[in-house]
Amino acid sequence: MTAVRLGDNKYGKAEVRLVRVTRDTARHEIEDLNVTSQLRGARLEGSFLEGDNSLVVATDTQKNTVYAFARDGVGSPEAFLLRLAEHFTGEFDWIEGGLWQAEQYSWERIVAGGAEHDHSFARTNRATRLAAVQVVDGETHVTAGLTDLTVLKSTGSEFHGFPRDRYTTLAETTDRILATSVTARWRYLPEAVAAGIDYNAVYAEVEALLLDAFASTHSLALQQTLWEMGKAVVEAVDAIAEIRFAMPNKHHFLVDLAPFGLDNPNEVFFAADRPYGLIEGTVVRDGVAEAPNAWKDLPGFI
Amino acid sequence: MTAVRLGDNKYGKAEVRLVRVTRDTARHEIEDLNVTSQLRGARLEGSFLEGDNSLVVATDTQKNTVYAFARDGVGSPEAFLLRLAEHFTGEFDWIEGGLWQAEQYSWERIVAGGAEHDHSFARTNRATRLAAVQVVDGETHVTAGLTDLTVLKSTGSEFHGFPRDRYTTLAETTDRILATSVTARWRYLPEAVAAGIDYNAVYAEVEALLLDAFASTHSLALQQTLWEMGKAVVEAVDAIAEIRFAMPNKHHFLVDLAPFGLDNPNEVFFAADRPYGLIEGTVVRDGVAEAPNAWKDLPGFI
Amino acid sequence: MTAVRLGDNKYGKAEVRLVRVTRDTARHEIEDLNVTSQLRGARLEGSFLEGDNSLVVATDTQKNTVYAFARDGVGSPEAFLLRLAEHFTGEFDWIEGGLWQAEQYSWERIVAGGAEHDHSFARTNRATRLAAVQVVDGETHVTAGLTDLTVLKSTGSEFHGFPRDRYTTLAETTDRILATSVTARWRYLPEAVAAGIDYNAVYAEVEALLLDAFASTHSLALQQTLWEMGKAVVEAVDAIAEIRFAMPNKHHFLVDLAPFGLDNPNEVFFAADRPYGLIEGTVVRDGVAEAPNAWKDLPGFI
Amino acid sequence: MTAVRLGDNKYGKAEVRLVRVTRDTARHEIEDLNVTSQLRGARLEGSFLEGDNSLVVATDTQKNTVYAFARDGVGSPEAFLLRLAEHFTGEFDWIEGGLWQAEQYSWERIVAGGAEHDHSFARTNRATRLAAVQVVDGETHVTAGLTDLTVLKSTGSEFHGFPRDRYTTLAETTDRILATSVTARWRYLPEAVAAGIDYNAVYAEVEALLLDAFASTHSLALQQTLWEMGKAVVEAVDAIAEIRFAMPNKHHFLVDLAPFGLDNPNEVFFAADRPYGLIEGTVVRDGVAEAPNAWKDLPGFI
Repeated sequence: MTAVRLGDNKYGKAEVRLVRVTRDTARHEIEDLNVTSQLRGARLEGSFLEGDNSLVVATDTQKNTVYAFARDGVGSPEAFLLRLAEHFTGEFDWIEGGLWQAEQYSWERIVAGGAEHDHSFARTNRATRLAAVQVVDGETHVTAGLTDLTVLKSTGSEFHGFPRDRYTTLAETTDRILATSVTARWRYLPEAVAAGIDYNAVYAEVEALLLDAFASTHSLALQQTLWEMGKAVVEAVDAIAEIRFAMPNKHHFLVDLAPFGLDNPNEVFFAADRPYGLIEGTVVRDGVAEAPNAWKDLPGFI
Repeated sequence: MTAVRLGDNKYGKAEVRLVRVTRDTARHEIEDLNVTSQLRGARLEGSFLEGDNSLVVATDTQKNTVYAFARDGVGSPEAFLLRLAEHFTGEFDWIEGGLWQAEQYSWERIVAGGAEHDHSFARTNRATRLAAVQVVDGETHVTAGLTDLTVLKSTGSEFHGFPRDRYTTLAETTDRILATSVTARWRYLPEAVAAGIDYNAVYAEVEALLLDAFASTHSLALQQTLWEMGKAVVEAVDAIAEIRFAMPNKHHFLVDLAPFGLDNPNEVFFAADRPYGLIEGTVVRDGVAEAPNAWKDLPGFI
Repeated sequence: MTAVRLGDNKYGKAEVRLVRVTRDTARHEIEDLNVTSQLRGARLEGSFLEGDNSLVVATDTQKNTVYAFARDGVGSPEAFLLRLAEHFTGEFDWIEGGLWQAEQYSWERIVAGGAEHDHSFARTNRATRLAAVQVVDGETHVTAGLTDLTVLKSTGSEFHGFPRDRYTTLAETTDRILATSVTARWRYLPEAVAAGIDYNAVYAEVEALLLDAFASTHSLALQQTLWEMGKAVVEAVDAIAEIRFAMPNKHHFLVDLAPFGLDNPNEVFFAADRPYGLIEGTVVRDGVAEAPNAWKDLPGFI
Repeated sequence: MTAVRLGDNKYGKAEVRLVRVTRDTARHEIEDLNVTSQLRGARLEGSFLEGDNSLVVATDTQKNTVYAFARDGVGSPEAFLLRLAEHFTGEFDWIEGGLWQAEQYSWERIVAGGAEHDHSFARTNRATRLAAVQVVDGETHVTAGLTDLTVLKSTGSEFHGFPRDRYTTLAETTDRILATSVTARWRYLPEAVAAGIDYNAVYAEVEALLLDAFASTHSLALQQTLWEMGKAVVEAVDAIAEIRFAMPNKHHFLVDLAPFGLDNPNEVFFAADRPYGLIEGTVVRDGVAEAPNAWKDLPGFI
């Protein structure tokens, strides 16, 4: 019989949908999250090898804990996940670490009768906020991010100067539509986490910086736009050690209208689904220590 | 051999993705649509019965026509679809009618350097705009709508007084979360279409009315909220004959925290996926003629 | 104030996910359904107009009823929906009708140790089965169907002879890939329903007939393939009055390899997502009475 | 100004949809793939930092190469990706490595007239096949896998003996439904790759082993089932170094029918969507060298 052993593993409850209403006054606030909790620990091996559940903090218990902790408020997804991480690693001495993740959906107040309503909201959907807390080898890492931030420039984008081989047919262009759906995750410096971060304020700042840099960059390649977006964030926010991007190049092809006797001066485009370019890159603050464990199992790149 | 005949049918090209950039000045505008064109006509029967394509305006030709017509601008999805409808029924005498549909996605200008950027946009995704033009029996019908407008009230919603039978276990409540994702389609009066409608302005007005009515209604049932939303639209907009809704009741269940020694004064909720309530209804202006053909094959109700 | 009235409406619970295990012997059977129940009745108007819920059979009660009725077995989705329809219209005299729908997912036994396992299954996903029961004006209609049956012919498909106008660029072809994802719904004759139908057997027969006709038809147009598929079903199954199809033409474009010095004798294709052709049609048994109410609110055509 | 540098990156073309028809005889074969090609190389830095595209093998060129290479056949996704990897790293001396991935969709012949048809196929969808080739630091790694293999046991699954804290409410059970959707990726030993592997045969063998082990294991925890499935594969297939799993625990909750005066002897279940358990684990052959680079950027765990 071949000898086998258990390698990397974790387990937990995924996609716990939590809506928290703060109603201390008549003007309510809502927080809308999708929380995932997963635990790791060498002594959990028995559940795999023998179905011994004596140390398995049930995934149902993890879900209950999420809801119970929400009774005291959320505040920010990062702060909420940190509370969960401290609880599980503190309460159960065989839980050595884990990965806690959240998506957060944004809502805006409905305007009714000319004023923002106290307790009625519309979902905005411009982007989905991401957060993750990772505990590995006694160290805690906090990353934040966003996904599905779809942006487009109708001019100010070129692509030329690339090498041509026998399989190259693409024409060069000095004016094209550039469109992408940004997924970004940034890692906070451990010392900044220790000192305390206003996670909601930083999130808003980073989103604004990304949008501004996308708009302001005259693009010679989506790679360059990615770099400028990351550079803007790392340079502006001291608490951030590095930022990772996965950015599809959502192609908009100029339609050839010549067969119909029409010109097309960059006005009519076909928005294609697949295939798409896929550009991934990381912008790192010089001199900071790398932290591969912070990214463990995170889908930062696809 | 059993005798069979061809019944109701139509054919065309679906989901033509069109992005139109207006660049008359440095301040660009974009229109982002997903267009479907389908044709009907008794003489098209031969394509089904014998594979005789001599009258089949190819679906590829329909796609090309969409792009060619976009060269002259879009303006509004309703106006654009009307142009397509007139073209196909006018150009080919055997095309008796059809259904032309569009989704439109909204974008907002990115703020860069403190000002709205001239040619950089972010997709908003609050709702998707819908439009349809139907030609049947020589009459043209225009409907408009929206989908995926997700709204929530954190209080101001009750549900009680319903009958109880042997299968009833639901508790009555005087304070619950009410959440739904609105799909609405409204039909324009033919005389208003003939007189000319500012479709973009009406769309914005209807979306605002729906949001205001949702927020302002103290709800005793989602049915009642639907009615109030529709009434507000029909009363405010003379051009609208009727409005249909499909509104899922997206349940938010109060989590029982008592097992953990905690109360839960309407603060911590589980947002459920399935099953969901599904309320559908129509609000009709008194005295207008019904127009079932306007709704032919449209997914107004699911 | 404009006078408005309530038009067409219904309400209920959507997507009740039901898995029923039959375990009378060690060899289990599973039935996996997604059930939607919606009710109609003139006296339900009060719930819309005034939030008067005194006649509103709660959507939660409808869900409970689905699960309670499953205690006595499912048998077939059509038979199960008929039981629900009879219950709601019989138990509550103000419920005049409604629409009950189901999707059913198929599972096959896992082969373990060389034999079909008694209680282990793998989901097959070749197609999803559909069923609907409609009660309107005291009449009960039963329709069945399937969706997402994806089929492809690698040859035996032509398309030519279509008219050419100024917007036509499509080349004629005598050999192309034909691919579609079949959605079909067929209506059972009321007298067949009354006499009793083996719904599971007929479903299997129809699926086989559709596949056989798709494969056997040398296609001159997808319209013609649709017609041949419907004709095969109506001619073979006496209980069926008519069958409706919505069939996207999933384009597979021959890739031009000439720039790379290669020919492409119908071997290398790009499978496109959007746009796609969309062919819809109905094959009707001669002489049967039409039943538009059977199709009310059903997404037979998209 | 803060000093920043470019970290980890790659770029390419994602989701190139390729259908390859083999038509050497009247009995056609089809291969249906979704291919992604991404390149890495230190000298590509200029495209990020300065928009210098002089070394950027265009993503469009990568797409063209996929189609051109398909002219000579696919064979297996692994063999096809290896050809692509060798081409890009061999043709362009600044391309040091990359990641090439494929999904493959399976089709079965349609039975028409009692026999398997020569050129008509139905898509099966039981699972999607995965393959990846990674080149890092001059080493080539081959992984294979599958996803969306949905399986269910209607009995033969227990869960008890887990610790209870103040947040634990879950009841113990000795008979529950166990259902999961298997995602698995396995790594081939470099020496087996060098010696040549019949990738299609091994894939079929692994899928059968996974199904057999799932069915045959009397489960005390999904962790244990995962372990037994992995052990079966590694023990049976010499070419495999390790196998990783991500397995959601798709909860099926027994419906409480007592309020309706009914018992429920494990027959009527509610299939829940979210949240779900999520169990991830790796089964490793003892003594093989670890190869973290093989898994770089792969979504092995979610």
